[in-house]
Amino acid sequence: MAAQILVSHIATQPEWQDRLYKQVALRIAELIEHGTLRPGERIPSVRELSEQEEVSIATVMQAYRVLESRGLIEARPQSGYYVRAKLWSPPPEPSKSQPTRSATRVSVNDLVMEVLKATHSPGLVGFGAAMPSPQLLPTLQLHRTMASVARRHSSLCNSCDIPPGNLNLRTQIARRAMESGCTLSPDEIVTTCGCQEALNLCLRAVAKPGDTIAIESPTYYGILQIIEALGMKACEIPTFPREGVCLDELVKRLKCCRIKACMFSLNFSNPLGSCMPDVKKARLVKILADRGIPLIEDDLYGNLSHSPHRPKTAKAFDKNGLVLLCDSFTKTLAPGLRVGWTAPGRFRTQVEHLKFISSIGTPTLPQMAIAEFLATGGYDHHLRKLRRFYAEQVPRVTQAITKYFPAGTKVTRPTGGYVLWVELPSQINSLALFRKALAEKISIAPGPIFSAKQKLENFIRLSCGAPWSEAMDHALLKLGQLSSSLM
Amino acid sequence: MAAQILVSHIATQPEWQDRLYKQVALRIAELIEHGTLRPGERIPSVRELSEQEEVSIATVMQAYRVLESRGLIEARPQSGYYVRAKLWSPPPEPSKSQPTRSATRVSVNDLVMEVLKATHSPGLVGFGAAMPSPQLLPTLQLHRTMASVARRHSSLCNSCDIPPGNLNLRTQIARRAMESGCTLSPDEIVTTCGCQEALNLCLRAVAKPGDTIAIESPTYYGILQIIEALGMKACEIPTFPREGVCLDELVKRLKCCRIKACMFSLNFSNPLGSCMPDVKKARLVKILADRGIPLIEDDLYGNLSHSPHRPKTAKAFDKNGLVLLCDSFTKTLAPGLRVGWTAPGRFRTQVEHLKFISSIGTPTLPQMAIAEFLATGGYDHHLRKLRRFYAEQVPRVTQAITKYFPAGTKVTRPTGGYVLWVELPSQINSLALFRKALAEKISIAPGPIFSAKQKLENFIRLSCGAPWSEAMDHALLKLGQLSSSLM
Repeated sequence: MAAQILVSHIATQPEWQDRLYKQVALRIAELIEHGTLRPGERIPSVRELSEQEEVSIATVMQAYRVLESRGLIEARPQSGYYVRAKLWSPPPEPSKSQPTRSATRVSVNDLVMEVLKATHSPGLVGFGAAMPSPQLLPTLQLHRTMASVARRHSSLCNSCDIPPGNLNLRTQIARRAMESGCTLSPDEIVTTCGCQEALNLCLRAVAKPGDTIAIESPTYYGILQIIEALGMKACEIPTFPREGVCLDELVKRLKCCRIKACMFSLNFSNPLGSCMPDVKKARLVKILADRGIPLIEDDLYGNLSHSPHRPKTAKAFDKNGLVLLCDSFTKTLAPGLRVGWTAPGRFRTQVEHLKFISSIGTPTLPQMAIAEFLATGGYDHHLRKLRRFYAEQVPRVTQAITKYFPAGTKVTRPTGGYVLWVELPSQINSLALFRKALAEKISIAPGPIFSAKQKLENFIRLSCGAPWSEAMDHALLKLGQLSSSLM
Repeated sequence: MAAQILVSHIATQPEWQDRLYKQVALRIAELIEHGTLRPGERIPSVRELSEQEEVSIATVMQAYRVLESRGLIEARPQSGYYVRAKLWSPPPEPSKSQPTRSATRVSVNDLVMEVLKATHSPGLVGFGAAMPSPQLLPTLQLHRTMASVARRHSSLCNSCDIPPGNLNLRTQIARRAMESGCTLSPDEIVTTCGCQEALNLCLRAVAKPGDTIAIESPTYYGILQIIEALGMKACEIPTFPREGVCLDELVKRLKCCRIKACMFSLNFSNPLGSCMPDVKKARLVKILADRGIPLIEDDLYGNLSHSPHRPKTAKAFDKNGLVLLCDSFTKTLAPGLRVGWTAPGRFRTQVEHLKFISSIGTPTLPQMAIAEFLATGGYDHHLRKLRRFYAEQVPRVTQAITKYFPAGTKVTRPTGGYVLWVELPSQINSLALFRKALAEKISIAPGPIFSAKQKLENFIRLSCGAPWSEAMDHALLKLGQLSSSLM
């Protein structure tokens, strides 16, 4: 099963064929897959395989590490590598979500803030905050770029930049949008203080207090908080863990609830990690266009596909200016700079005005630094590295969950991003688990913060945004034990 | 008259006595004041005075430049310096404002944005935007500090900083607040994306759509826009040009309108430049505390007193946590970084939550850089320089207005900040003037953007935030001519 996944995974990733160690790993995986090497059997030693395949020791070592991380083989001290007696197979996935059918007031803010404050305390092993570790980011290079920009454009950097924001940055964003299937001009883009400000501005541009907004169930708590703070109502739409929003259910809700706008994350949504197939995106855009309903598209994780190419955005299918695309550089480059943007279609003027009213402008120097980094700093190279990292990290954490968590635990299988949505056996209360974990210096995000009415009590979100470590392995073991103790 | 102003100005600024050239200027000013040197008379040449007073040529030159900028003497080519034939006297001031008495919906946003876009076009002589010129700010030093902070705390700088914001910065802010009479702990402060975000958060924390907010007439257009965008109403309170809000009128409105909160700028308000005496501030705080009404205090210009010491804030008199103080470093240090803060008293939790919801956090590196600059970079020294600059620049622009604008023009006499509020003869429409000026590549801010219902048609605001230049003098001459042509 795992071998099959590895084989098919490798088959869909053309870049694997360039790497010798991956070819070696693939060959061994196929031998396991076909039963040539059977569970419990010793596989060739590193030296043997190195001679046999005429590749270096290092290459074989690297191949074995990949196989080990995927749970296909295990090292036994003083003895060598063996096919795992019980091959790891990924746990079952959660099923389609079942939120209540009616529009509802949101009341989640106080809980979110309690969780958040706890999650950001120092000294925790952190699975709680969905933030990339600065170690994974080209921080030094970005700071050097910033210092250089500041030297060269000193006065300009220390001037106020009013909406729509820095032209160089908007130009770079427009260029990059082609990758997600969008044809954008810099004039269609407004820069913001992170994606969160973009979502706020877009929602205020299309809806008023009292209006009902369709969201995914589960959805990112920040979206719930915006809706709550603006006095709007939420209509939670059922989702599939792989493909996201169930469009048939959406159509039903559009008939019975007076939905003013939708706010969805279609690519590697948070917390589900789902990715809506492009053909479904096209259908979604058409469903909404037929009814004149705006779609605020949160594409924060769209660039973090685990395969070399990113999926399209719904914006790519938008012919009516009804899709308001929001994104930022927070998850891929600069969590500390909070530079985001939106392409709000026909709502551009309103969004620009609201941006000025909310915060006058986006800080100038961070915008200029990111623009220059995008133009010259190897952002693509960095993104490729980051994607590969998460493509290995997410299965690794999943595997630990399978190993340590109680039977009956279900886990999503995201193909992008770095969060896992974990369904625990129904008796386990995730808020109780959250508090017990915190006492052990481990942070997690409990399910209720992803639900308008604090449902989803037996779910947790685990973020895999930091490099693997023994402390992390130990913390997952502990989390598994705590979960069992709550059954 | 001008001599008298200069003499009394110098008398109240102890630091003048340290500077030789200022002593020389003072002596000449006194000679003019007492009639020893009479209008039209030649004063000693630079060389003569240098020998007579045993000071350097440069010192005398500098003294004469001060006297010239204050309108006491004039240079005649090939001939020397003369006491001005007609000594300049400052123009009359506008009288108390007379807004409508009832609470009103605000509709100013579209006009503000039109003006703003025009004002920020390149290539204008700018009196429109109230922004300090980067030349007046320690930009290079600030950028160097930032680069150094980024090198030393690379990972931390590229991490997300959630509310209440960076502790070092909050500590520095709390320390500096002592100067304005406040005892604040870092825990009482929340950092924001500029003062504008702080004002938004505070208003959302204390009032809901439909509520009525008391504001000054005239008031900063950004405040009007916030009220409009949040669906609130404004009750404009009459102001005196020197002392700001008329408290007796405020008390009357508190009786008849259901005022939910006040939003005032008490120190060098924008556009009036008024400064409420501390004793009146204490009374204001008491009036509101007796009624349990929150005061959002915009202190953006409080540090830009033209004398060496800054006035107190209303927050200094607050015993009930009802004053929400807002400020930023935009006008004094870093217009490009948009780092602000608020001390929201008893509304701290709500403000913190709203800050997270609006923009997650304030960019980390800019906060750290400003914290370090405040701690070690000579911010006080810089502030003193900036205050002295504006203390000379504001009268200089006033003088040009007197010289060039039609009779009947009235001008405020701010004792801090760098904006002048100009009342033109009643026939002149300031929006027409704004458009004509723009055609001549000159920007101004027309009165109607400072009024809830676009009144104040014959007022303009002129910003003096850039160093004096011939182009500026020429633009003021042109503005005067355009004004006359509109009569």
